Amino acid sequence: MKTLSIGIFDSGVGGLTVLKEIRALIPQEDLIYLGDTARVPYGGRSAQTITRYALECALFLLTKGIKLLVIACNVSSAYALPIIKKRFPIPVIGVIEPGIREAVSVTKSKRIGVIGTKGTIRSNVYERELKKIDPEIVVISKACPLFVPIVEEGLEKEEIAYEIAEKYLREVKEANVDTLVLGCTHYPVLKDVIHSVMGPDVRIVHSGKETAKAVKEFLEKENLTTTKKKGKETYFVTDSPESFIEIGSRILDRPINSVKPIKQIDFRYIFFSS
Amino acid sequence: MKTLSIGIFDSGVGGLTVLKEIRALIPQEDLIYLGDTARVPYGGRSAQTITRYALECALFLLTKGIKLLVIACNVSSAYALPIIKKRFPIPVIGVIEPGIREAVSVTKSKRIGVIGTKGTIRSNVYERELKKIDPEIVVISKACPLFVPIVEEGLEKEEIAYEIAEKYLREVKEANVDTLVLGCTHYPVLKDVIHSVMGPDVRIVHSGKETAKAVKEFLEKENLTTTKKKGKETYFVTDSPESFIEIGSRILDRPINSVKPIKQIDFRYIFFSS
Repeated sequence: MKTLSIGIFDSGVGGLTVLKEIRALIPQEDLIYLGDTARVPYGGRSAQTITRYALECALFLLTKGIKLLVIACNVSSAYALPIIKKRFPIPVIGVIEPGIREAVSVTKSKRIGVIGTKGTIRSNVYERELKKIDPEIVVISKACPLFVPIVEEGLEKEEIAYEIAEKYLREVKEANVDTLVLGCTHYPVLKDVIHSVMGPDVRIVHSGKETAKAVKEFLEKENLTTTKKKGKETYFVTDSPESFIEIGSRILDRPINSVKPIKQIDFRYIFFSS
Repeated sequence: MKTLSIGIFDSGVGGLTVLKEIRALIPQEDLIYLGDTARVPYGGRSAQTITRYALECALFLLTKGIKLLVIACNVSSAYALPIIKKRFPIPVIGVIEPGIREAVSVTKSKRIGVIGTKGTIRSNVYERELKKIDPEIVVISKACPLFVPIVEEGLEKEEIAYEIAEKYLREVKEANVDTLVLGCTHYPVLKDVIHSVMGPDVRIVHSGKETAKAVKEFLEKENLTTTKKKGKETYFVTDSPESFIEIGSRILDRPINSVKPIKQIDFRYIFFSS
């Protein structure tokens, strides 16, 4: 059991911001990453479709031999975490709870901003969970639907990214939050842009760092840490690997090797009308 | 045969700009539309994945009883039209050739701009086909990867759409084109924005209008026009219909009814690694 890998999935390259933090904290574990690049982005899709996609990603990783599943995608965590926990015989960690814990611990004014995809914001999971911990907390939520395409298209250094961020973040900034939760694993790629728009006084919560801590604590508590010295990484993608390799290498700050495209067993995606 | 429908597909709501023109020109035909909203956008995906998705959409429409297939998606037309034509026992019309014919007929300076998704621009189909007709034509191509998310998210009236358009269209405008081909069926939704950025002297080619003419001509030439008086429309989508109904109704300028979500026969999207 200890020698098994940690499985991590996201809709695309965004979850690599979580993998990066896990790798930094736990160098010895084997990591298997799945980016569902043939169907990214998830954030604007229905709850039903997001749940189906997340279940499929989880099922795929399960067949690879994993001791722990990390859902490195906020919208998948928002909609599919409970059902995956219920149906799958392995422990599951999402990215929402660790981010919430951190936000609560750093806020002083109890005014917290949350940005995410349409689906995550619509789910209301952050506001609900934050108020459960402290009913005095005021949550200002804002969906930023163009941030994922910007990251997936590799446009995060372009002026356009800054202009779009200014537009999206205006009302969160004007609400005088002292903490901003990046409620989407793609958003840390835009961290510099977001930081410069929000100003130096706003604390940015990067759920990936907190998730990595939760993963480490869990392995130690359950005595599941490997005895290996150095872990390896394997990447799977559902579309061709070129763009994933290019953008992913930028996110990880090092070259990505061995990215494997996944083929369907049944080439035809058969469906019928209801 | 005459009583069969015309099948139309696109990655999402964009193809409705083509359906709208077909309906305006041919009120008597039954139209069946498929929007692959669970997998939109296609434009940034690999040629292989775009081709697979387009084949699946075509296969679905084929099972519905159609006499003609319209690929109302430029990137699908660019990559999958030849293989669909070869494999499917029905006539197929794409959106690229009609737009090219129109562009050639309206340009005076022989300087033509083409905007589209990354996949369409990468395919180089417009430049290749335009130069085949007239080698003196100069083509200025520009990928606009955020335009489809803007339309799918319903942001076309927001200031941000204008700012992004200014950014994308700068070099096309500076190249002094007299004609601009909207090489993506989502882009007519942004027509006002594009028009205001490009200025009144640039002729905008909307491939949907030209495609509708090609459809009408084809039916008449092949003696396939129905004898019915008034055609009906049926819509299928691969994700939940809510967002499609909302944005689609705005595109068509009238309410959309009877949008049917498609369920897969095999719920699990089974795949394995290569």
